[in-house]
Amino acid sequence: MIYMDNAATTKPCEKAFEKARKFVTEQFYNPSALYEEGYALQSELKKARSALLSKVADETAFELVFTSCGTESDNQAIFSFARRGNAVTTAGEHSAVSAPFIELKNRGVIESRIAPLQKDGRVDIAKLLSLVDQKTSFVSVMHVNNEMGAINDINEIARLVKQKNPRVIFHSDGVQAYGKLPFRLSRDIDLYSVSAHKLGGLKGVGALVKRKSLNLPPYILGGGQETGKRSGTENVFGIKQFEYAAEEKFRHLVEDGKRLEGYREKLCSLLDTEVYTRLSPVDGTPYILTLSAKGLRGEILLHMAHDKGLLIGTGSACSSNAKTRYNRIVLACGYDEKTADGTLRLSFSTDTTEKEIEEAAAILNEIGRDLKRRMA
Amino acid sequence: MIYMDNAATTKPCEKAFEKARKFVTEQFYNPSALYEEGYALQSELKKARSALLSKVADETAFELVFTSCGTESDNQAIFSFARRGNAVTTAGEHSAVSAPFIELKNRGVIESRIAPLQKDGRVDIAKLLSLVDQKTSFVSVMHVNNEMGAINDINEIARLVKQKNPRVIFHSDGVQAYGKLPFRLSRDIDLYSVSAHKLGGLKGVGALVKRKSLNLPPYILGGGQETGKRSGTENVFGIKQFEYAAEEKFRHLVEDGKRLEGYREKLCSLLDTEVYTRLSPVDGTPYILTLSAKGLRGEILLHMAHDKGLLIGTGSACSSNAKTRYNRIVLACGYDEKTADGTLRLSFSTDTTEKEIEEAAAILNEIGRDLKRRMA
Repeated sequence: MIYMDNAATTKPCEKAFEKARKFVTEQFYNPSALYEEGYALQSELKKARSALLSKVADETAFELVFTSCGTESDNQAIFSFARRGNAVTTAGEHSAVSAPFIELKNRGVIESRIAPLQKDGRVDIAKLLSLVDQKTSFVSVMHVNNEMGAINDINEIARLVKQKNPRVIFHSDGVQAYGKLPFRLSRDIDLYSVSAHKLGGLKGVGALVKRKSLNLPPYILGGGQETGKRSGTENVFGIKQFEYAAEEKFRHLVEDGKRLEGYREKLCSLLDTEVYTRLSPVDGTPYILTLSAKGLRGEILLHMAHDKGLLIGTGSACSSNAKTRYNRIVLACGYDEKTADGTLRLSFSTDTTEKEIEEAAAILNEIGRDLKRRMA
Repeated sequence: MIYMDNAATTKPCEKAFEKARKFVTEQFYNPSALYEEGYALQSELKKARSALLSKVADETAFELVFTSCGTESDNQAIFSFARRGNAVTTAGEHSAVSAPFIELKNRGVIESRIAPLQKDGRVDIAKLLSLVDQKTSFVSVMHVNNEMGAINDINEIARLVKQKNPRVIFHSDGVQAYGKLPFRLSRDIDLYSVSAHKLGGLKGVGALVKRKSLNLPPYILGGGQETGKRSGTENVFGIKQFEYAAEEKFRHLVEDGKRLEGYREKLCSLLDTEVYTRLSPVDGTPYILTLSAKGLRGEILLHMAHDKGLLIGTGSACSSNAKTRYNRIVLACGYDEKTADGTLRLSFSTDTTEKEIEEAAAILNEIGRDLKRRMA
């Protein structure tokens, strides 16, 4: 099987798993325990926090709170700070951001304002800024769009937003960017969500990076773990495996990105242009290539690809509009329903090989031509 | 090292870990993926749900939602249903329950009413019932008290509460009961929280059992996992390891309970009554024995025990009152500060041996006498 659905989840790093295993078999204690085995785990958590944070932010200005997933991180950021006036986000967000916005709007807590996307999947910055005013309490703009692969320049967007209203709390969902793009958070960014299982970590582990001076209320309350910002016994094993997996990814991040960019372009160049149109931009993340087989159904192609040994997606499982079945993000980019219906997302990992790229192209061409013939 | 702090966390079951490992190395897919490898994981989650639920509840009347921990389960139950009028809980609750109650009181959402404890750690049922009236929206009573080991008869309490006000939503924190006591939920109970890492599961996995006909709103919103009740990519590996670990525990639950009850009594009988007073009741959980070395500091004894190779607690890390340093639950049982200050909690697992019990008693006697001599 060729696995090209890494934006959905990646295979956990086994080296990191083995290395972290001792936190199951030996150092299984509760980090809150008052004896030295407990303290030792606090220090392991501190090391993990520092290792994961320092890769993307200045530790004197930012800190990191462990959560159970990227979705929880997004929820904590939004429910904590989108509390009055209006809050602004984009039409390209993952449902972990869009669903809390809808909820807060329905509760009457905020006026929700949604900035449109450009054709390439990036937010239209001028239109986003036009939605920000003196009553804006919160702005959330995702870093890498999980459907299109487009990269938003969040440091620049945050700077412009704060120029217009310095009291805004600026959040970004960095789930598809962390460990994949060379990047450092500017001080205009207040909150940044990450997830372990998109880069070789385990499911069930995430983090919320926050500006130190920002007072983040807990969203899950109890024993006061994570310096009171996230209660619940810390998932030491999952956190350490995340730390070790991230170390692997960050070590060759730039080279891996270049290599995968080459693969992405090669795959694209091998595709039959009579069948496939590229949707994701050339300057997007190297890890995602989104296509449309216009006039064909993406879901049928997904199953045909599966039968040939290629695992791909039609976009995030969370992005399908139950009413229309079409990928809502692709529609938000301005594409028509036929294009949206033919969406396929190929997403890579550092394990992806050139041979797999060639085989994937051959499979896609074969099934695309086959289905097109049958539909004619 | 003799580990007798199992109420804080237990050593994960390695057999279950090995069995679940394939969900890291092979079946690492996203359960929301549209190809058959994704569907297969949905069916694995369904099996886990059924296995874990059927042990304590009738599957036609109840369902189970996976969460990231017992604390999240408690938070979801409370923030979802303690929304108006007054809400009633006990002075013995874990902070995963008491902290959300304080939060809702501070927000002005509910009037918070706290029922007192009896000396043995159980809630005073008559006083609890006197707090329930027609404006009560929510009642939460823990099943097994994590500090004292006392067992509340939650089926009976729920029945009496509903007799007084049938519209009340009744929740119980079952974290220290699930997989340890023979028990089935009556239909008077609406919500029941459990945690994996207290019975050989991994940290970072919990569940909220709910009555099927109860409409539980999500607390973490996003991609709509767990039939919309808890978003975030499912922690398949952690969930399956929980399922397998629980299967092991439930298999010999009654025999294990009897054996540990014998151990608990043996340990108690071996202790120097000049030093130690038993706080936990004879009819409490076999898994917890709480003592007080009155006049001595529990924390000092904990460190002395550690130096002799015995790991114990002074109670939940979450229970210490920052202002007074005394165990708030022991105080709530009506003990004085000196008794509370001398609290030691010994908590067992199915791995605990009779030899360890004897050694623990010898260590406790030695250090207790030693410290008493030095204090004299």
